[in-house]
Amino acid sequence: MNPNEKIAIAGGGLVGSLQALFLAKHGFSVDVYERRHDPRNSDYSGGRSINLALSDRGWKALDKAGVADDVKKEAIPMFGRMIHDQAGNLTYQPYGKDGQAIYSVSRGGLNKVLLERAGEKENVNLLFNHSIGTVDLEENILHVEDMNTGVRSQKKYDRIFGTDGAFSAIRKRLQRTDRFNYEQRYLTHGYKELVIPANADGSHRIEKNALHIWPRGEFMLIALPNTDGSFTCTLFFPFDGQVSFNALDTSEKVTTFFNEVFPDAVAVMPTLIQDYYENPTSSLVMISCEPWNYGDKVCLMGDASHAIVPFYGQGMNSGFEDCTVFEEIFNVHHGDWNVVFNAFSKKRKPEVDAIRELALRNYIEMRDKTGDAMFLLQKKIEARFSAKHPEKWIPLYSQVTFTHIPYDEALRNGEVQDAIMKRVMNRADIADVWDSEEIEHAILAELTAEMVN
Amino acid sequence: MNPNEKIAIAGGGLVGSLQALFLAKHGFSVDVYERRHDPRNSDYSGGRSINLALSDRGWKALDKAGVADDVKKEAIPMFGRMIHDQAGNLTYQPYGKDGQAIYSVSRGGLNKVLLERAGEKENVNLLFNHSIGTVDLEENILHVEDMNTGVRSQKKYDRIFGTDGAFSAIRKRLQRTDRFNYEQRYLTHGYKELVIPANADGSHRIEKNALHIWPRGEFMLIALPNTDGSFTCTLFFPFDGQVSFNALDTSEKVTTFFNEVFPDAVAVMPTLIQDYYENPTSSLVMISCEPWNYGDKVCLMGDASHAIVPFYGQGMNSGFEDCTVFEEIFNVHHGDWNVVFNAFSKKRKPEVDAIRELALRNYIEMRDKTGDAMFLLQKKIEARFSAKHPEKWIPLYSQVTFTHIPYDEALRNGEVQDAIMKRVMNRADIADVWDSEEIEHAILAELTAEMVN
Repeated sequence: MNPNEKIAIAGGGLVGSLQALFLAKHGFSVDVYERRHDPRNSDYSGGRSINLALSDRGWKALDKAGVADDVKKEAIPMFGRMIHDQAGNLTYQPYGKDGQAIYSVSRGGLNKVLLERAGEKENVNLLFNHSIGTVDLEENILHVEDMNTGVRSQKKYDRIFGTDGAFSAIRKRLQRTDRFNYEQRYLTHGYKELVIPANADGSHRIEKNALHIWPRGEFMLIALPNTDGSFTCTLFFPFDGQVSFNALDTSEKVTTFFNEVFPDAVAVMPTLIQDYYENPTSSLVMISCEPWNYGDKVCLMGDASHAIVPFYGQGMNSGFEDCTVFEEIFNVHHGDWNVVFNAFSKKRKPEVDAIRELALRNYIEMRDKTGDAMFLLQKKIEARFSAKHPEKWIPLYSQVTFTHIPYDEALRNGEVQDAIMKRVMNRADIADVWDSEEIEHAILAELTAEMVN
Repeated sequence: MNPNEKIAIAGGGLVGSLQALFLAKHGFSVDVYERRHDPRNSDYSGGRSINLALSDRGWKALDKAGVADDVKKEAIPMFGRMIHDQAGNLTYQPYGKDGQAIYSVSRGGLNKVLLERAGEKENVNLLFNHSIGTVDLEENILHVEDMNTGVRSQKKYDRIFGTDGAFSAIRKRLQRTDRFNYEQRYLTHGYKELVIPANADGSHRIEKNALHIWPRGEFMLIALPNTDGSFTCTLFFPFDGQVSFNALDTSEKVTTFFNEVFPDAVAVMPTLIQDYYENPTSSLVMISCEPWNYGDKVCLMGDASHAIVPFYGQGMNSGFEDCTVFEEIFNVHHGDWNVVFNAFSKKRKPEVDAIRELALRNYIEMRDKTGDAMFLLQKKIEARFSAKHPEKWIPLYSQVTFTHIPYDEALRNGEVQDAIMKRVMNRADIADVWDSEEIEHAILAELTAEMVN
């Protein structure tokens, strides 16, 4: 390893700024290029404002980078899901064991903290208002434009990291190389942000320490708490069809629809119609590609190589885990970037393929199954069994959210659990005997049988 | 329909030049832009020289465009596969019934015929040496560059067809629109062209009217006849691994490998080593995307929207069938381009998804199963049953190659047949009783059972 190497990070978003902190620790000279304005010392809101749910994988990376404590000050723990049915009845479902929570954080606020820390490093140079044109892959020269002056320049680097998100300019260049596999796939659902403002005294109008869900089968509304007492709500909704963004084409239709389907939410959303019309309808894209590197020169991380849908709360967490995994591999193989980049891509690709699949499946779980009594009963049985036999059973959601088990391993474990629970839930008397020893022993027997197979 | 409409076709390859003929018949003013030189009045070889196998879907389109007779003069019928084992033993397998054949044609020669016919139309303007930059989708303006003069111009059209192949510039612009799904996927195998020259008297050195295959499990060599007495051979081979393009890194290794694995081919390939080193190693890509159109302005056809691997001989045929299907839809809905483009995309996408899948599967069949005695026996049983009950059973290969059954329907039919044949082939005595009435009745019973299900 040569600490005099010059490294460029294209994209100073969440993953780019965190990766800058990791690389700075190794003594490299790091330039971070970011298209947006400097958010430090200013009121800044993130480019995308879907609220983010930080969980253990993300915290681990922030902790290793030394910024976890700063972030925690502004994070609101959500200990469970609060389900709102159409009549306004509430059902609460804890996410994990006592004390386990996912944390609502502002994307912009988190990015600001990371950039502040990165900016304090002597060997990190933050270049805002710089857009990435392309990369000359032969010479490893980055083409950038200073958007303030319009001046274009070409800078040569030893390594270039592409952390420039789902529409990555770095990846676009790799897409034109031979044998580069690439997929961009959009959901037929989009999203729109809405708001539940704070009470006059700055308190939250609905339960603060929960992620609220209004599951309605084909669509859903969710709400995550902000520190100012408000909630950021997101409506996930089909673009087209009878019940869709396109069908709600007058404010009367929007009002009628919300009053009928989300009455208790409407009661706390005074600016609903205004928000509905002022906020954009955005699409949801999944990105996958391979390879993630160009020899020992260029490496993609985060959404640039694996954007996923937000329904498992793992988009940011998986991007942050990229940094942890990269750091672990770097510490073993440092000195040989080719080995590092290849090992990173090889280990990480199947893992993020798994969370991509899980996130897609979780959309159906969130919008449909969380409103289903049998599904909630199944979760209670799993939680009870897991509490008694924590070494034998970690619910899939907990594996993904509260452990560092690789995503692909969690996916496989979850499929075994799912097959077992399907048989258990099939018992006609399950609603009566769900918390009995008989059920506990039935699950134990099933687990033993699975281990033999 | 307004015949004064101006239409641009981006790409004057096989599908672009054929589509020009169809659109010209309706009276439109058609500009065809092609990056390559004018092949008319010159010795021309196609940009890609994999030999092409024309079959019924392609012939139907050529016939409707009035060029089938011209093409047939230069086409060599191949009535079956000639399988070469490692000892040089030959096994022949007819493709269909007596007289049914696929036709070996030169890509360049076929393109030349189509461009000649298109150039004869008063309302078709062929612009060679013109490269497509991009499309302004709002104004439907095509950005083109005259590569002779370097002059760039912008031309407005009523409709723009993107027939500019797997790396389509038109599709690249659509890729940047919201909710455009796109995938490019490469095989881990590549290909290299080789040659079996003609005898001194211009005759063919091996059987002329067959497609020759040297199936070797993980890879294969094939040969298609040319009218000059030569064969164009293609080695389909892994890029990496123990037996691969990368592993054959000296001419000694190439010679040893070919002598061992393809001895009877080597005997008729005097320029093997020279060809091996002079010809490029090329990759194989599959493209899929959706939607194929941008409103009523832009429409993709052929490889631009659905490039597939060449192992079913359906790449060109499916592109030509695009033109036939488009013409049929146009004739029903003409006057409403939005309906035409949407209906075309909606009907055609599942069809080409099916041939994409079939072509991928056929690679394994060609390189592996065609060398397997049980596979050849199964084909004989199917051919025998099909001959006796043509209304009940058309082998999958024949459905794809010798009918106009939509590809997706053929895929589903083939899966039913496959399940039946799996059970039939499972009989211990199948090699002895394969041509018995008992087997015939067993298949009939299976078919009846399938129809009840």
